[in-house]
Amino acid sequence: MNEFELIRSIVPDLHTTESTIVGAGDDCAVVDIGLADRHLLLKTDAIVEGIHFTSDAKPELVGRKALCRCLSDIAAMGGTPDSALITLALPDEHDPTFIKRIYAGINEAAKQFDVAIVGGETTTNPDRMLLSIALTGHAAKTACLRRTGSAAGDAIFVTGELGGSLSGRHLEFEPRLAHGRFLAAQPGVHAMIDLSDGLAGDVLHLLEPEGLGAVFRKDSLPIARAAKERNRSGASSKAPMVAAFTDGEDYELLFTVASASAVNVLDAWKEAFPETPLTCIGRVTAEPGLRLQLDKPDQIVSLKLDAYEHFSKPARNGETR
Amino acid sequence: MNEFELIRSIVPDLHTTESTIVGAGDDCAVVDIGLADRHLLLKTDAIVEGIHFTSDAKPELVGRKALCRCLSDIAAMGGTPDSALITLALPDEHDPTFIKRIYAGINEAAKQFDVAIVGGETTTNPDRMLLSIALTGHAAKTACLRRTGSAAGDAIFVTGELGGSLSGRHLEFEPRLAHGRFLAAQPGVHAMIDLSDGLAGDVLHLLEPEGLGAVFRKDSLPIARAAKERNRSGASSKAPMVAAFTDGEDYELLFTVASASAVNVLDAWKEAFPETPLTCIGRVTAEPGLRLQLDKPDQIVSLKLDAYEHFSKPARNGETR
Repeated sequence: MNEFELIRSIVPDLHTTESTIVGAGDDCAVVDIGLADRHLLLKTDAIVEGIHFTSDAKPELVGRKALCRCLSDIAAMGGTPDSALITLALPDEHDPTFIKRIYAGINEAAKQFDVAIVGGETTTNPDRMLLSIALTGHAAKTACLRRTGSAAGDAIFVTGELGGSLSGRHLEFEPRLAHGRFLAAQPGVHAMIDLSDGLAGDVLHLLEPEGLGAVFRKDSLPIARAAKERNRSGASSKAPMVAAFTDGEDYELLFTVASASAVNVLDAWKEAFPETPLTCIGRVTAEPGLRLQLDKPDQIVSLKLDAYEHFSKPARNGETR
Repeated sequence: MNEFELIRSIVPDLHTTESTIVGAGDDCAVVDIGLADRHLLLKTDAIVEGIHFTSDAKPELVGRKALCRCLSDIAAMGGTPDSALITLALPDEHDPTFIKRIYAGINEAAKQFDVAIVGGETTTNPDRMLLSIALTGHAAKTACLRRTGSAAGDAIFVTGELGGSLSGRHLEFEPRLAHGRFLAAQPGVHAMIDLSDGLAGDVLHLLEPEGLGAVFRKDSLPIARAAKERNRSGASSKAPMVAAFTDGEDYELLFTVASASAVNVLDAWKEAFPETPLTCIGRVTAEPGLRLQLDKPDQIVSLKLDAYEHFSKPARNGETR
C-alpha cells in the first residue's frame, strides 16, 4: 500500500459536516457557506525543493508555479480564486534574497489573477525548502464542475497541447481560469479535471469511479512541440505520443461533454478563445480501461498503464513532478 | 534580519483585494465573502518533526495538536471553525500505522470541535514529516476580535494557567473556542491573542503596534503547577514566574478590557465558566515596554526581553516550539 492508497483508505472515516458538498478526492473541496448563489472552494498544494523544483530554478518562477498549481485546480471546478495563505518552511540557513524573489513570483501571479495574499507563516524545515499554498475561491452553485458525472458516449476534450512540459512550461503555464468558467457554464459539459500527473493517469479520475473507460483517437492528440523536440534532441526517450499521454504538469483542462453538445461547445469555444486549441481526443465507453484507435475505426488496441509508468520514470528522477 | 523580520518587510507589498478585512499579521485572516452577518476566517499552521514534536511523540497527539493549534487561533478571534485541509509531507520510507494514528488524532479533534476534514494532499519531504493544516472558520462581524484596539488603562486578562506546557499540556490542550466566542461578545473587550510563544513575547503583538506598554502584577500571575514542578525537579532551570512569562505553547487567551468593564467581564465569566480560571494580570500603559510591579504599588521594575530570550533558550533545544 503506497501513501496515496493509504490516505484513500483513511478518507471515508474522516469527519465532515452538512456544509461539506464535496470533500477529499476532487480538484477542490466545495463547501456551502450559506450564500444563495455560490459555494466556497478550498485547495492546498505544496511544492518541495528537489522534488517539485530544483535548487537552481529561478525563485520567481518557483513562487509563481506554487500559486498557479492551486489556481489550475480552481479552474478545473469552473471557479474564481479569492484569497491565499503562504506557508514557507525554510532551512536554518537561507538566503533572504531568494525568499524575496519567491514572494515576488507569488505576488506577480496574485496580481495577475487578483488573488489576495492574506497571511500564512514561516517555519523551519531543516533540510530543504517547502512552499505550501492554501487557496480559497468560489463557484456558482449552478456551474461548479466535479470529476464525477461522465457518461458512456460522452466526447472527451482537452485544452491546449500535451507533453514536454519539463522544457519550461511547467514553470510558466497560465492557469485556465477563464476557460474553466466558460466550460462550466456550457450546457452538456459533465465533468472536468486539470492535468497535473499526465493524461493517461488523470483521465482515470473521471472514469474509474463511474466504472467507465475511454477510446482515444491516435491522430487527434494535440502533441506539444516541446514533446517532439525533447524526443528529437534526446532530452527524453519517450515517443512524442507517449509524452502527450504520460508527461505530467500540462495544467490543461480535460473534460467530458454529452455527444449531442460537443459541436456547440467547440463552436462557442472558437468564438471565445480563438487562440487556444480545444481538441476532441476520444470518447467515453461503458467498457472500463483505456484504448487507442489506430488508423482505422476498427483498429482499437489496449493502452497498458504499466508501460506508461515505465516510460514516465526517466522524467521523474527527482527533477520535477 | 531573521526570516520573521524578512517576511514582515515583504508583507506590505503583497496583493490584497477589497474583500480582505484583516490580512497577514493577526491570529487569522478575515475575509468578507458577501454574507450579511459574518466574515470568513482563514488560518494555516505547520508542525515539523524534530522541531514541533519528537519522533517518539504519540502520533494521535501529534495529529490532535496540529489541528488544535489552528483552532486556538480561531478562538482568539472569537470565531467558530468550519473546514480543514490536511497537508502531510512524508519521507519516502514511512510507517502506515504511524500515519493512520496521526489521522486518527486529527479526526478525534475534528469530531470534538465539529470541523469538517474536506481534503488536502500527501507529498514528499524526504528527511522528516511535516504536517500542515489549513482551516476555515467564521466570526460574527460584530464580534470578531483582532490584536489591535487596546488602550492605555485597559485591564489585561489571561485564561487558565501559564508555564510548564512542555510537561504535556502542549500536546493535550483544549482550544478555548467557547471562551473566545464568549469574550468577543462581551462589551468592553478590546483585543485578543492566543498564547503560543509565551506571555512576554505575545503580549507585545497587542501593545507594540499601538505604541503601548504594560505593567504586570508579580503576585497575580496564574502559574501552572507544571511550571513549579519542572523547576523543582530540575527539568527546567527557569524560576516558575519566568516560565509563566516565557514558556511557549500555553494556548490560553490573552485579552485587554476597558477598565470600566473589567469587573463585569470577570463576573460574567465566573457564571459561564466556573471551572476555568480568568485572571487580571496587569494593565496597559501609555509608556511602551513591559514592567513588573513587585510587592508594593510603587515598586515597578523593567522586564528586559533579552533576559527572557536567554531564559527561554534551554526549553527550545529543538524539542518543541
